[in-house]
Amino acid sequence: MHRFFIPSEWIRQSRVSLTDEPAHQIIHVLRLKPKDHIILLDNSGWEYEVEIDQMSPGLIQGRVIGQSLGTTEPRVKVTLYQALLKAEKFEFILQKGVELGVSTFVPFVSERCVVRKPGENKLARWRKIMQEAAEQSGRALLPALHPVATFREACDSAHGASILLWEEERSLSLSRILKGPPFQASPTFNVFIGPEGGFPPAEVAYAESCGIVPVSLGHRILRAETAGLAVVVALLYERRELG
Amino acid sequence: MHRFFIPSEWIRQSRVSLTDEPAHQIIHVLRLKPKDHIILLDNSGWEYEVEIDQMSPGLIQGRVIGQSLGTTEPRVKVTLYQALLKAEKFEFILQKGVELGVSTFVPFVSERCVVRKPGENKLARWRKIMQEAAEQSGRALLPALHPVATFREACDSAHGASILLWEEERSLSLSRILKGPPFQASPTFNVFIGPEGGFPPAEVAYAESCGIVPVSLGHRILRAETAGLAVVVALLYERRELG
Repeated sequence: MHRFFIPSEWIRQSRVSLTDEPAHQIIHVLRLKPKDHIILLDNSGWEYEVEIDQMSPGLIQGRVIGQSLGTTEPRVKVTLYQALLKAEKFEFILQKGVELGVSTFVPFVSERCVVRKPGENKLARWRKIMQEAAEQSGRALLPALHPVATFREACDSAHGASILLWEEERSLSLSRILKGPPFQASPTFNVFIGPEGGFPPAEVAYAESCGIVPVSLGHRILRAETAGLAVVVALLYERRELG
Repeated sequence: MHRFFIPSEWIRQSRVSLTDEPAHQIIHVLRLKPKDHIILLDNSGWEYEVEIDQMSPGLIQGRVIGQSLGTTEPRVKVTLYQALLKAEKFEFILQKGVELGVSTFVPFVSERCVVRKPGENKLARWRKIMQEAAEQSGRALLPALHPVATFREACDSAHGASILLWEEERSLSLSRILKGPPFQASPTFNVFIGPEGGFPPAEVAYAESCGIVPVSLGHRILRAETAGLAVVVALLYERRELG
């Protein structure tokens, strides 16, 4: 069944009114009809099954016929602190990260970033990519996208279990960190991934001073966008959140 | 140091002659000079450190100054049986799969594939993407790309530990399979990933009759290209091949 994140005020008791993009999608792209069912999500964690009863140009009305708590959210809340990357790579990270189960994205600018801060148009595009990925993959909550931070601001804001992927780290492997205390059972997890050129030692030192642990992903050199997803998969797999 | 896979006959004892694409890359793209060092790979598992001594248009000569066995290949050999996907998704799988450590790719056509068999131009493009990813990620062996098979041919050719990702599988999770016998210690691993529309039950039944085990990746619905990479990461992580 098709899923749509909507503003919570579109649902009033058991009546629903949809306008804007969801109405356009339902009428012109999916060509649904009265009596068809959809799932609405108001980002509270609840899922509302709705039967469409009236359709007019730009407005769809329906009624809630069932309500249940979503079961697809990982129990561990992963925040991906991702350095700005070239456009298609950053969008790739957002899309795949949402599918896999990331809860929050914090874009940041670090010394070796070669990409400028996104403007409002790009941010709107990013939010759209995230929402589509959340709807398509069956998420019950829409992951958050924070404003672009500096690297230091990002480090300062990371509390609890936090790692930074560093290609020059030789001793501490991801699995040793994920399987040992205190990370093993942490309900939240922060992952820092650098830009294409990686982190300079001074940034790694600053991160360490904030309690963020540099770890290695092994022998092969992964591109920035591959590394981020690999860590997210490994973490969710370790916590039995990926089958 | 820049790495290049080359035909083994380009190395004769300690002398090396490079032409074609590697020579072009070195001269015009990387703008290396005599006395610069490169790593050559002849797909034997050995890595040759070479000092460039002569450069002329289209021909580079140098001498081997060191030779060592590559250490970047995973000990578990993963074969990714991947249904044909739309162009950019299939290329994405090849690129990321090579970076992560896949040994062999077997493209196949199944019932719900909507993409036609690739022509020679596309196969050449795929091989180029794989080679670049292998060089960039530091692989010591160039992963193999098999000819496109039918789904049944692909199933018939899969020996040993084999799984198929199925979104309708409810009971058997990936981690249960990866952590239990006989898969736990298998030196080879075959992973079947369907096309955008997934596998119909009849195909899953055929795979099962060949000993291929359908497994689930959990609660969220992953796109075909995300699912393949998630399984590869989980498998390599489980075997301590990803840090």
